[in-house]
Amino acid sequence: MSARFTVGYRLLAPSPQAAAERAEGIALEQTVEVPRDVVTPGYVEDEILGRVEAVEQEEEGRFLVRISYSPDSVADELPQLLNVVFGNSSIQKGIRVVSLDLGEALSARFPGARFGIAGVRARARRPRGGLICPVLKPQGSTADELARIAHRCALAGADVIKDDHGLAGQAVAPFRERCEKVSAAVARANGETGRACLYMPNVAGRAEDLHENARFARRCGAGGVLVLPGLFGFDVVRRLAADAEVDLPIMVHPSFLGSWVLSDSFGITHALMFGTLMRLAGADISIFPNVGGRFGFSEAECRSIVRECQARDGIGQPIFPSPGGGMSVERARDMIGMYGDDAVFLLGGSLLRHGARIGEPIAAMRQVLDDLHY
Amino acid sequence: MSARFTVGYRLLAPSPQAAAERAEGIALEQTVEVPRDVVTPGYVEDEILGRVEAVEQEEEGRFLVRISYSPDSVADELPQLLNVVFGNSSIQKGIRVVSLDLGEALSARFPGARFGIAGVRARARRPRGGLICPVLKPQGSTADELARIAHRCALAGADVIKDDHGLAGQAVAPFRERCEKVSAAVARANGETGRACLYMPNVAGRAEDLHENARFARRCGAGGVLVLPGLFGFDVVRRLAADAEVDLPIMVHPSFLGSWVLSDSFGITHALMFGTLMRLAGADISIFPNVGGRFGFSEAECRSIVRECQARDGIGQPIFPSPGGGMSVERARDMIGMYGDDAVFLLGGSLLRHGARIGEPIAAMRQVLDDLHY
Repeated sequence: MSARFTVGYRLLAPSPQAAAERAEGIALEQTVEVPRDVVTPGYVEDEILGRVEAVEQEEEGRFLVRISYSPDSVADELPQLLNVVFGNSSIQKGIRVVSLDLGEALSARFPGARFGIAGVRARARRPRGGLICPVLKPQGSTADELARIAHRCALAGADVIKDDHGLAGQAVAPFRERCEKVSAAVARANGETGRACLYMPNVAGRAEDLHENARFARRCGAGGVLVLPGLFGFDVVRRLAADAEVDLPIMVHPSFLGSWVLSDSFGITHALMFGTLMRLAGADISIFPNVGGRFGFSEAECRSIVRECQARDGIGQPIFPSPGGGMSVERARDMIGMYGDDAVFLLGGSLLRHGARIGEPIAAMRQVLDDLHY
Repeated sequence: MSARFTVGYRLLAPSPQAAAERAEGIALEQTVEVPRDVVTPGYVEDEILGRVEAVEQEEEGRFLVRISYSPDSVADELPQLLNVVFGNSSIQKGIRVVSLDLGEALSARFPGARFGIAGVRARARRPRGGLICPVLKPQGSTADELARIAHRCALAGADVIKDDHGLAGQAVAPFRERCEKVSAAVARANGETGRACLYMPNVAGRAEDLHENARFARRCGAGGVLVLPGLFGFDVVRRLAADAEVDLPIMVHPSFLGSWVLSDSFGITHALMFGTLMRLAGADISIFPNVGGRFGFSEAECRSIVRECQARDGIGQPIFPSPGGGMSVERARDMIGMYGDDAVFLLGGSLLRHGARIGEPIAAMRQVLDDLHY
């Protein structure tokens, strides 16, 4: 029998007995989905059926349970792993996923990030210190306008430049034209500076185009790709990370994932969603809303995401947390204090206030980061 | 300028003024994602920027707002449409999506279901009355065991037979073997009965395999496909519905979609998630947890889903709502009263109690449905 994987759930229940019953219910729901008395004896009952490993009371009415599942339930399919972790139980109130321990068998099947922090640093030639990432906006701009902004940002010292997550296949700046022009503009700037700023276009589009878009980005000389797993599924990230023809760092964006984390009593914790699951899928950089911005994540929630991204003992290599929103030169010291050096700091829409002088705040931010580090 | 599409949001806000400000914030967030004072004049400001069309107070602290967006923001991409509807705003508390009006331009781009209620009835040769759909389980069974169950169910009068959503690429019953053997078993039963029971295998697997799995299902003689948009993204449904080589009715399952609907104060309403968005994606049959089962949806929530699936004036053709859980011969009359004839009634794990006589409850249910109808 293979080493099982284990999921931690926080349950609301009126008593220890009720919690134990709920846990047994999850173990059935997430595997065989039949009443306990009709579970087939033998392989199905002994191996496939979820197994309640622990039920601990955290406080009045709240319990932490651990349920183990068979790697056989998952085969080598990431969507099916998520299906076992929380497919149907996501529809029940009072159940929140708080941890995932892959165990031996699945750890071998899901290697995590291809690049991780070390690999992205090597590609961006930034061995130490925080990375700066301005965002290309707004939607409705032409590819030439976006390329001009990107050129200025790269000249000023940006390490990564990403598309706004709302840049998709719009006629005013279609993916291929945008990808070619911005990649060329960043390459030109890199030629001037001798640096290696990475442009990461949003490989959106239709389901059937996303993967080919990423290969196209690679051929254009893009330095990475931006992906929205909330809209395209986590498995497209895994597929991109495994494709030798893509061979680019992957930045993931939290669009269309919000409802998973917003309640304390159901869904998935911030750390698990924006840390563990992104590492599992194979992302190298995980964007999330910064504390103090317009999304209301708490400092504790942000810290939990960062810990999970950077942890040495997580799935695969450590990856970059990438806080977005509320970042400025003035706040840079606090942010470094909170996130450390191993972070990609997004600089968003307020940069555009500087117009043609958009490079100035980027250069100032670079200075602060370097002063802090060296 | 093209006809805009309009999204309704329910907002929590302390005052009408605060609600209007929140609405303006959403209009920015979901399009240009820059502060209002740096929105580029001209095309970006006039066309791309979201436009607050209405702010109405529903009750103390609760408002209904309508925001219109440009079809240019979306191009012809479903993921990008969802991104504009609720991408970043999904991460903010106190915002719930309650309606989507596609407008003229997008209605032409997103035609909805290929089969709809009428098309599925024609394929299943069940012109009137509710459809019965037993579920093949449990995970861990061999393909031969599942085929045997399917044969019995089809002989007894099932209209549709679906895979459990947890049947994926497991080694004990890999997709292709399962699909071939069950399709053959159902075809054999159809040969005996002269009827046209439709087998709908779960076309799961890896992201790169899903579409080819559906084409394989078609070649095997399967009668439809089961898809999990929560795990693979809504756009895979659109792609399958548009593919002439697939040409099969699509049943969608709510796995990994729960957190969207569970809170009154954020996420997406039940009717929009399991009705509107499934029609938009091109599903023909939408599964959701029945009232009185183990998922806690209320009668009002279930009725709202059914209304939205069956409505004549929704996106594309009306589609089948498919309540799962808590269904039995005893409850059949009540269920018909609630859902009407145009529903696909799932029969789940408790069927397995009947063992080799699994056909008996199916035949009994068929009798009840026919008695009610004729």
